[in-house]
Amino acid sequence: MEPRSRGAGPVGMSVSAVLPAGGSGERLGGATPKQFCAVQGRPLVSYAVRAMERISWISDIVVVVSPENIETMKTIIEKYGHKRVTVVEGGITRHRSIFNGLKVFAENEFSNHLLQKPEVVIIHDAVRPFVEEDIVSKVVMAAKEHGAAGAIRPLVSTVIASAADGCLDHSLERARYRASEMPQAFMFDIIYEAYQQCTDYDLDYGTECLHLALKYCKTNAKLVEGTTDLWKVTYKRDLYAAESIIKDNLSQQVCVITNVKETLAQVGFLLPESLKSQIKVEAISKSLSKNDNCLQNIISGQCYNFVCVNDKRWAIQETQELVDVLEKANIPLLYPVVLILVHLDIPENNSFSIGMEDLTTIKKFARETKKKNILVYGLLIQYK
Amino acid sequence: MEPRSRGAGPVGMSVSAVLPAGGSGERLGGATPKQFCAVQGRPLVSYAVRAMERISWISDIVVVVSPENIETMKTIIEKYGHKRVTVVEGGITRHRSIFNGLKVFAENEFSNHLLQKPEVVIIHDAVRPFVEEDIVSKVVMAAKEHGAAGAIRPLVSTVIASAADGCLDHSLERARYRASEMPQAFMFDIIYEAYQQCTDYDLDYGTECLHLALKYCKTNAKLVEGTTDLWKVTYKRDLYAAESIIKDNLSQQVCVITNVKETLAQVGFLLPESLKSQIKVEAISKSLSKNDNCLQNIISGQCYNFVCVNDKRWAIQETQELVDVLEKANIPLLYPVVLILVHLDIPENNSFSIGMEDLTTIKKFARETKKKNILVYGLLIQYK
Repeated sequence: MEPRSRGAGPVGMSVSAVLPAGGSGERLGGATPKQFCAVQGRPLVSYAVRAMERISWISDIVVVVSPENIETMKTIIEKYGHKRVTVVEGGITRHRSIFNGLKVFAENEFSNHLLQKPEVVIIHDAVRPFVEEDIVSKVVMAAKEHGAAGAIRPLVSTVIASAADGCLDHSLERARYRASEMPQAFMFDIIYEAYQQCTDYDLDYGTECLHLALKYCKTNAKLVEGTTDLWKVTYKRDLYAAESIIKDNLSQQVCVITNVKETLAQVGFLLPESLKSQIKVEAISKSLSKNDNCLQNIISGQCYNFVCVNDKRWAIQETQELVDVLEKANIPLLYPVVLILVHLDIPENNSFSIGMEDLTTIKKFARETKKKNILVYGLLIQYK
Repeated sequence: MEPRSRGAGPVGMSVSAVLPAGGSGERLGGATPKQFCAVQGRPLVSYAVRAMERISWISDIVVVVSPENIETMKTIIEKYGHKRVTVVEGGITRHRSIFNGLKVFAENEFSNHLLQKPEVVIIHDAVRPFVEEDIVSKVVMAAKEHGAAGAIRPLVSTVIASAADGCLDHSLERARYRASEMPQAFMFDIIYEAYQQCTDYDLDYGTECLHLALKYCKTNAKLVEGTTDLWKVTYKRDLYAAESIIKDNLSQQVCVITNVKETLAQVGFLLPESLKSQIKVEAISKSLSKNDNCLQNIISGQCYNFVCVNDKRWAIQETQELVDVLEKANIPLLYPVVLILVHLDIPENNSFSIGMEDLTTIKKFARETKKKNILVYGLLIQYK
């Protein structure tokens, strides 16, 4: 078997993604379209991009935004260091935006840099920040087999049809119906064919891609039962919920790195001991370095938060090295990593060694790492 | 026109409410049924009860809970001082529980204390904490006219039907359908008749009351467009959202009450001045008393938070009087009222006048008022 390269999907096919992000967010009741609303300081669209980005077998991520938001989107990509993302100008409706996104893979004249046409294309909303690789993979494999596939969820409320007089006509039996959610995936040629054939009415008033594949390509999409985290941020309360979910998903594992004089090394022993009852703890009691295999092994594949105990000056350089390791391992891509720098200050001649300039340095450092989703906090403990 | 009495609804009819609260909360993924989950320290069902309770023209509120939760519910009613509430034992399904709730108004043998049968009965979920009088009133009036009525909301996702093979059969045109939400209201005789006639299959597998009224009484319910706050707490993220909405709805108005020696009265002047740019401020600079018309006028109908500036001992008695006034005016029924007690401490003989026992007293006081949804915080400012 050949080793998988980037772009080789779960069953060896090439996969890319289109994220329509052109909505106006009317239902949210604010001036900012919801995909650009900040959740924990980061725009919602950045979470959705990140959710796609951390799936290594997705080649290209096309984000479709309205003309007035192209610069905003480019700034977000730069600020949060998103990779493999192409920004495309959207149309006036959701379907027209998705169609524009698909064209980048197929029409030379549309884009300056035509992207390689994938076998399967994922369509996912910019306002669905939490999507796990597992469901994306399932939907992609089902699309490969059936031509089209989409995630579904049980209905939360009964669905009813009203008559012309505003009274109940009939209610649907809840068990027979499902809510159509995202992600969806399609054999590229099928969904592109469907968009090329569909009417202006479809493009202006429709929203459902599965419907287009059925209507124009006779493809009955496979429906894949999704998880609760697929929901779409629609109302203001959903922004609140997203924020709480992010906080809730912070890793419950901590790695304590101690780098202090031997006389104080007991701190590096006592801290993990006292944390152990509440949280999974790993402890390392030596100096950090880029080639530290011990650290590499600990963080490979697992998300940890870190407590670094030092008795030297704030040790920005060593912290920078840790940040580099984390970034390289793609650890902070989905959820924030918390990094607590504990500085044990043992004053000589009764004067403490921390000055205003150290505080400024660490604040500046924390501001920079926050953009990478690494939250740095400093804690100063003074020994008298 | 006769003056309205309790129980005289928006068009002079008698109205009561049934709140099914028997669900097991499986979708929430926790052991506690969602209606008993705490949001800001108070069980969700208590918010729904309060939302009904503060509508003066609702006579009785029947809460239907599963047998194992009857004591829990009674404790909640006592703890939060709910009035006009009757707890009824539910059945094994939602419809059976609602039917049990309705029986209390109609069947002598079912309940020891038969409640007076209302003309119109509201059915509202215990897991929909935010419902305003306006929509309840609209639904009740529509029920009076049409026999049945229910709140609806636009669909958030497209609804699809799946075929036997798990593939898409067809998708519904989103604009033609609505989500059926709560509250719903019915002429009592209509919904009771419907429940008496309906089959075991309906009682076991149905969930929609509007459907029963249509099927068994040929009553086409009037559909009333609802507000975004009618949503149902279904998943854990909804609990997060509910919590944030409560915090968001804290009053943005503050009343500063100053009761200090003249030499310090400037505090009572400076504080409102500096708050004015951010928040609506009312200032009162005299001693509180139960007969204080000035205070009565300020809080009548409007929700304020309070800052009380004192230079005496914590002045618990005066604060208690304020709490009494607030409670009597039903102000903290829906959202918490925040009460900040600022104590200006001017030490005589260089010793401060606040002791440990004062702190204990205020903490105990705060614990008590919290049950009434009044959040008391103390702030001690020491003058040297």
